[in-house]
Amino acid sequence: MTSSDIVEKDQLDPWGSTAVKDYNRLQTEFGIEPISSVLPRFKVLSPHLSRGIDFGHRDLGRILDAIDSGKPYAVMSGIKPTGVFHLGNKMTADDMVYFQSLSKKAIVYYAIADVEAYCDNGISFRDGSKIALQNTADVLALGLDPERAVVYLQSEEVRVMRLATMFSRGVTLNTMKAIYGEKQIGLYFSALIQAGDILMPQLREFGGPKPVVVPVGADQDPHIRLCRDLAVKHSDEFGFISPSAIYHRLMLSLSGDSKMSKRIASSSITLEDSPVAAARNVRTAFTGGRATVEEQKRLGGEADKCPVYDLYRFHFALSDEHSQRVYDECVKGVRMCGDCKAEAAGLVKAFLEEHQKKRKALEKDAQELIAKSRASLSSLGR
Amino acid sequence: MTSSDIVEKDQLDPWGSTAVKDYNRLQTEFGIEPISSVLPRFKVLSPHLSRGIDFGHRDLGRILDAIDSGKPYAVMSGIKPTGVFHLGNKMTADDMVYFQSLSKKAIVYYAIADVEAYCDNGISFRDGSKIALQNTADVLALGLDPERAVVYLQSEEVRVMRLATMFSRGVTLNTMKAIYGEKQIGLYFSALIQAGDILMPQLREFGGPKPVVVPVGADQDPHIRLCRDLAVKHSDEFGFISPSAIYHRLMLSLSGDSKMSKRIASSSITLEDSPVAAARNVRTAFTGGRATVEEQKRLGGEADKCPVYDLYRFHFALSDEHSQRVYDECVKGVRMCGDCKAEAAGLVKAFLEEHQKKRKALEKDAQELIAKSRASLSSLGR
Repeated sequence: MTSSDIVEKDQLDPWGSTAVKDYNRLQTEFGIEPISSVLPRFKVLSPHLSRGIDFGHRDLGRILDAIDSGKPYAVMSGIKPTGVFHLGNKMTADDMVYFQSLSKKAIVYYAIADVEAYCDNGISFRDGSKIALQNTADVLALGLDPERAVVYLQSEEVRVMRLATMFSRGVTLNTMKAIYGEKQIGLYFSALIQAGDILMPQLREFGGPKPVVVPVGADQDPHIRLCRDLAVKHSDEFGFISPSAIYHRLMLSLSGDSKMSKRIASSSITLEDSPVAAARNVRTAFTGGRATVEEQKRLGGEADKCPVYDLYRFHFALSDEHSQRVYDECVKGVRMCGDCKAEAAGLVKAFLEEHQKKRKALEKDAQELIAKSRASLSSLGR
Repeated sequence: MTSSDIVEKDQLDPWGSTAVKDYNRLQTEFGIEPISSVLPRFKVLSPHLSRGIDFGHRDLGRILDAIDSGKPYAVMSGIKPTGVFHLGNKMTADDMVYFQSLSKKAIVYYAIADVEAYCDNGISFRDGSKIALQNTADVLALGLDPERAVVYLQSEEVRVMRLATMFSRGVTLNTMKAIYGEKQIGLYFSALIQAGDILMPQLREFGGPKPVVVPVGADQDPHIRLCRDLAVKHSDEFGFISPSAIYHRLMLSLSGDSKMSKRIASSSITLEDSPVAAARNVRTAFTGGRATVEEQKRLGGEADKCPVYDLYRFHFALSDEHSQRVYDECVKGVRMCGDCKAEAAGLVKAFLEEHQKKRKALEKDAQELIAKSRASLSSLGR
């Protein structure tokens, strides 16, 4: 299968595994702003920003205003605790950590969607709770500051459920169909729960209305649009400020045919993979290489269609220059796929070894963060 | 407006205010069993049973088996705390108290749907919690034994929300449309939450699978059908036994045009009404009387279409004989509407005075029951 099989649909499907082909279309059609409009306002660029991975946003100016004026804002993200922490989760977590680092007034809210893991993947709450601990250790290893973070299990946070139930009252089936297409009502409801997660930090007991930024993959925009609609609809009651979002490009799966997904193990990399197995997956990945070495030298590789180049660009290049060099050498026909994959495999292996060591050491901190969050959430009024 | 305006739709609408015209149709079309099939098994008949108010059931044999063999069963009901406790709520509560009284092994689960009161009626959780206390005092005044009862607020019971979310995954829009017609997804979700309420008593932490009886008005059958479907669908995982139900007829509103509903204050009676005002409402009610006294004497009244007769039959007659005598005198043309309404008004006034005194005295008990329930629920494992 080649990258020409990548299909595109009229509707973004946050639950599907279809790659996004045309990021510009998201801007013209759905109103995502190009990141260039706010880029000059950042004092320090994350690799996602400097490498064009974060390509768009909605209302990010609100967050930049809060940073400039030292006002509080929230960074909201989450994970479904299925036992794997995928490179896509890492991408979101990297953005989350970055936005937390931009101001001492930033608070991270990290939702562990154990109800969804239970419903969709049959993972018991006991197991979900163990995995939550691992996932929390993962984000700590990726740089989350536990002093300004609240981590909660969806199954314990009745405020989110309450908001979701309330939101469900004002939403017609036609609205949901327009945003998501015809789906099971469970998926509609999970979208409403996510809206509850995103808007919870603006409840009175959390200090009231404030800017919130949600880092997401491009395919998650339907959730953001729904949530922003709901924020407006309920602004009289709660004073909600429409949440902001920053959008990142989706990595190609190692088999090159879709977005990287947990669904197909051999075509993805997770932070739980054994470093050796992950390196092997990289060495057998689909690439943007040509049919023969001769052709590759003559035409150059197709880095823009290459999941191995994505590994460098999105995660494992040692610097922006390194990422750019890999790209240039590839498209000029100087870099051959075998060598390139071997180098990438080495980087992946080294990262995983290091990350897994860090994570192990942070398990106790993760436990403390969850316990501290639980105590602080249950002490809040309603 | 006369009773001929009572319309009937193909679908029962648990949220509507349409009267049920043909109770037999519910049996032939939706499979509700006639109550006569199990009536001989009851050792003591409640007024609802002896007066034909409880007209049908589903799987009530399971509850009667449990009673006979001294095995545990649950009685499940609830109320939306809107500030009024309507005669329809009283009807359900009377059945609940009756089924609790039939065995020392019966446990009542009473859900205070404050999330719904918040969503549908804009009642804050603070107010919802105060009203919950009043409603609990109401059911205690109606005879609930607090020793075998668990009262919980929906907003505090995450297990119900978890079940609802789980159920939502397996349900298609088409299933919901087939049962309820095209509705807002919030109503679909409230139906799933109710299914969570009904099935919660069968979770492991509550002693596992057991028969559960839900007393409901005829128009609530769609909820029962959905819940029974969900019980079967999730029986592998939880061992759920399909819940049983007992169905009561719906009272006519005092204006005679639909089922009695909280929506129109002057056409209904609530346990919060001032006794004097309620008596006045009775005296101005629509009746099944004829155009003139002469005609009434000649043809007899139409007790079967008379909301005032419903007051006697469903709630305020002093005995079965009294209820029957009112009926007979009416249809024979011996009883005139003015006298009949004056008698009913007196009964309503006396009941409300007595009930409100009892309820006042039971407020502390209500507080204790809620606190005890909260402590016991939060001590359970997950």
